[in-house]
Amino acid sequence: MTVQKGQSAGGAATPPVIGWRDGAVVALDQTRLPHRVVSLTLRTVDDLIDAIRRLAVRGAPVLGAAGALGVALAARQADRNGWSATQLDEQVERLRGARPTAVDLGTGVSAVLPALRQGPEAAKTSALAYLDRVVMASHRIGERGADFVSEACGTRSLTVHTHCNTGALACVRWGTALGVIRSLHARRLVSRVIVDETRPLFQGARLTCWELGRSGIEYRLVCDGAGPFVLARGEVDAVVVGADRIAANGDTANKIGTFGLALAARHAGVPFVVAAPETTLDPSLPDGSAIPVEIRSEAEITHADGRQVAPDDARALNYAFDITPAELITAIVTDRRLITSPSGPSAL
Amino acid sequence: MTVQKGQSAGGAATPPVIGWRDGAVVALDQTRLPHRVVSLTLRTVDDLIDAIRRLAVRGAPVLGAAGALGVALAARQADRNGWSATQLDEQVERLRGARPTAVDLGTGVSAVLPALRQGPEAAKTSALAYLDRVVMASHRIGERGADFVSEACGTRSLTVHTHCNTGALACVRWGTALGVIRSLHARRLVSRVIVDETRPLFQGARLTCWELGRSGIEYRLVCDGAGPFVLARGEVDAVVVGADRIAANGDTANKIGTFGLALAARHAGVPFVVAAPETTLDPSLPDGSAIPVEIRSEAEITHADGRQVAPDDARALNYAFDITPAELITAIVTDRRLITSPSGPSAL
Repeated sequence: MTVQKGQSAGGAATPPVIGWRDGAVVALDQTRLPHRVVSLTLRTVDDLIDAIRRLAVRGAPVLGAAGALGVALAARQADRNGWSATQLDEQVERLRGARPTAVDLGTGVSAVLPALRQGPEAAKTSALAYLDRVVMASHRIGERGADFVSEACGTRSLTVHTHCNTGALACVRWGTALGVIRSLHARRLVSRVIVDETRPLFQGARLTCWELGRSGIEYRLVCDGAGPFVLARGEVDAVVVGADRIAANGDTANKIGTFGLALAARHAGVPFVVAAPETTLDPSLPDGSAIPVEIRSEAEITHADGRQVAPDDARALNYAFDITPAELITAIVTDRRLITSPSGPSAL
Repeated sequence: MTVQKGQSAGGAATPPVIGWRDGAVVALDQTRLPHRVVSLTLRTVDDLIDAIRRLAVRGAPVLGAAGALGVALAARQADRNGWSATQLDEQVERLRGARPTAVDLGTGVSAVLPALRQGPEAAKTSALAYLDRVVMASHRIGERGADFVSEACGTRSLTVHTHCNTGALACVRWGTALGVIRSLHARRLVSRVIVDETRPLFQGARLTCWELGRSGIEYRLVCDGAGPFVLARGEVDAVVVGADRIAANGDTANKIGTFGLALAARHAGVPFVVAAPETTLDPSLPDGSAIPVEIRSEAEITHADGRQVAPDDARALNYAFDITPAELITAIVTDRRLITSPSGPSAL
C-alpha cells in the first residue's frame, strides 16, 4: 500500500473518494479527515480489506464500489501471481466478508463476478461501470428525496437533521441522505443542517462537517445525546439518514444512534426519511431481527480519537449499527422509487 | 489554588470528593479522573467558581456542598480582606450564579446564608452540617430507589442503565442514581450496569466507570447513541438517572442525553426512574419549559478529551442539559418520598 499525502484539508482539489489508477484502487483515507487529505494506493486484496476494516474506506455505497473494484484488483493479482481459480474465489469471498452489516459490499462484488473469468481488463471495465451507476443513483436519490421532503414540510427554508456521513465520502459523489440535503440546498431550501457527531468514530464531526463546510452549507454539530432534545425543542423540520441494510418489512439498519433519533422524530412529529440506493434493500430478510449487527472493538468506546478516556480495565459494548423499526420511518427514498409509510411483510 | 497530586487512580485511599481543610475548600479535580487522582485546595471564591465552571467540581449535590462551603470560604475571605457586607454579598451571589441549571448550587448557598453574619466559624459549622445532610440524603435515596426498582422489576439480578455520573463523585458519598445501583448491589440484585459515556465531557466513561470498577460492580460502557438500541434489544431491566432540576409537574432537567434514553425506555416498556435529593425539586417552576438550559462552549463538541475532531471552522450547538417530560418518568425517588407516575401541575 502506498500513502500519498495530499494538501491540507483546506486545499481546493481533492483526490477521488475511491477510484482506479494504474492497476490499483485509490481511495481517500477517511480516518485522516478533516485534518489531512491522504490518498491511499491499494495494490492487493489484503490492502483493500485492511482499509475497509479500519474504516479508511467506509460508507455503504463506497463499500459497494470497493467490492466492485476489489474484484478487479483480485483479477489483476491472480494474473500477476498465477492464482488458481479456487484461490481467486477465496480472495473474492474474503473481500465480501470484510464487514458483515453493509449489504452493498457484497452487491459490488457480485456485480463484477460475471466479468471475472474474462480477465482483469473486463473486470475493471465492469467495476468502473458499477461506480458510474453508484454516482447516478446518488443524484437520483438526492432529487427524489428533496421532492419528498419539500412536499412533506412545505417549500420553505428548512433545518434538516442527519446522522453519520452519507455524503460524497460515503457515496463516491453527491450522497444519499447528504445528497438529499445537497439537492435541497441547490433549490435554496436549506437554512441549517444539524449534524450528529456520531460516536464512536465521529464520522459526523469529521466527515459530514468537512463536506458541508466545503459546500458552503450552514450547519451546527451536536453530540449524539443532544439530537433528541434539539428535535423536541422544535428546531428541526426533517430528519434524513442513510441505511446500511433494509429488510423486506422496511426495518432499517444504520449507524448506531439512528434508532434514538427516529424515536425522537416521531415524538416531535417530524418526518424521518431513509435515503439509500436500491442495492441496500435486502428483501431476503423478513425483518430487522434478521439483520446481522456488527459488534466492533471495545477500544473504540473506551477511547476517543485515539485517547483513552475510560479506566484501564473498563469493559465496553460496541454495537456499530442499530435497527430502526419500519413504523418509525416516514419514507424510504431510493434511486428507483419512494416508499411512504413502509409496513407489513412486503413493504418493499 | 494549590494542586496536590495524589496517587494514581488505581490507588486505595482517595481524598474526599469535597470538604474543608485548614480554612480552605478541598476537592477532587474530576477533570483528571480516571487517570490521575488530584486534590485541589481552593482558598478563594474565585478559585471555587473557576473549579465549578470548568467542571472540576460537578454533580448537583456536590454543587450544593460547594455552594455551602463557598459561603464559609467567602466569610473567611471577607474577614481576611476587610470586605464590606455589600462586597461579601456580591461574592456570594457570584458563586450562586456560577452555573445556571443546577438548583442545588443556590440551595447550598442559601442554607449557609443565615449563619453568614455570625462570622466565618459559624458559616463553616453550618456548611459542614449541610454536607452531612447531603450524604444522609444519598443513602436514603439509594435505599428507597432500590426498594422501588426491585418491586417494579421483581427481586432478581438486574441490568440497570444509567447516564452521566451520579455517584460519590457527584454526591460527596454514595450517590443518587448510582446510590440506587449501589443499594441494589448491596442486596446482590445487580448483574450489570450499562453506562452511557455521556458526551461531550465523558462523565460516564471517566467517572462512573471508575466508581463502579472500585466498587466491584460489573458494567459495560456504551456510546450515547447506543443506549436506546441496547434498551430495544431487551438487555436492560431499568433505567435510573439523576436530575439537575425538577419542575412542579415532574418535568426533569438532567445531563444532555437523558431525554432520548427516557423515550427508548418507554418504547421498550422499561421503568425510567429519576433519583435526586428533595433539594433538586423546584416547585416555583410550573414545568420544564421554565427551566433554564445552559448552553456551553462549542469547543466541548468540536473537541473530544482535548483533541480537535471537527474541522477548524466547525460550528456546534452545546446544550448541557435536556428536559425529560414527566409523562416519560415512571417514578421520582427523593430522600423524603417516592412519587410514582408524576403528572399534572402539582405532581410534587
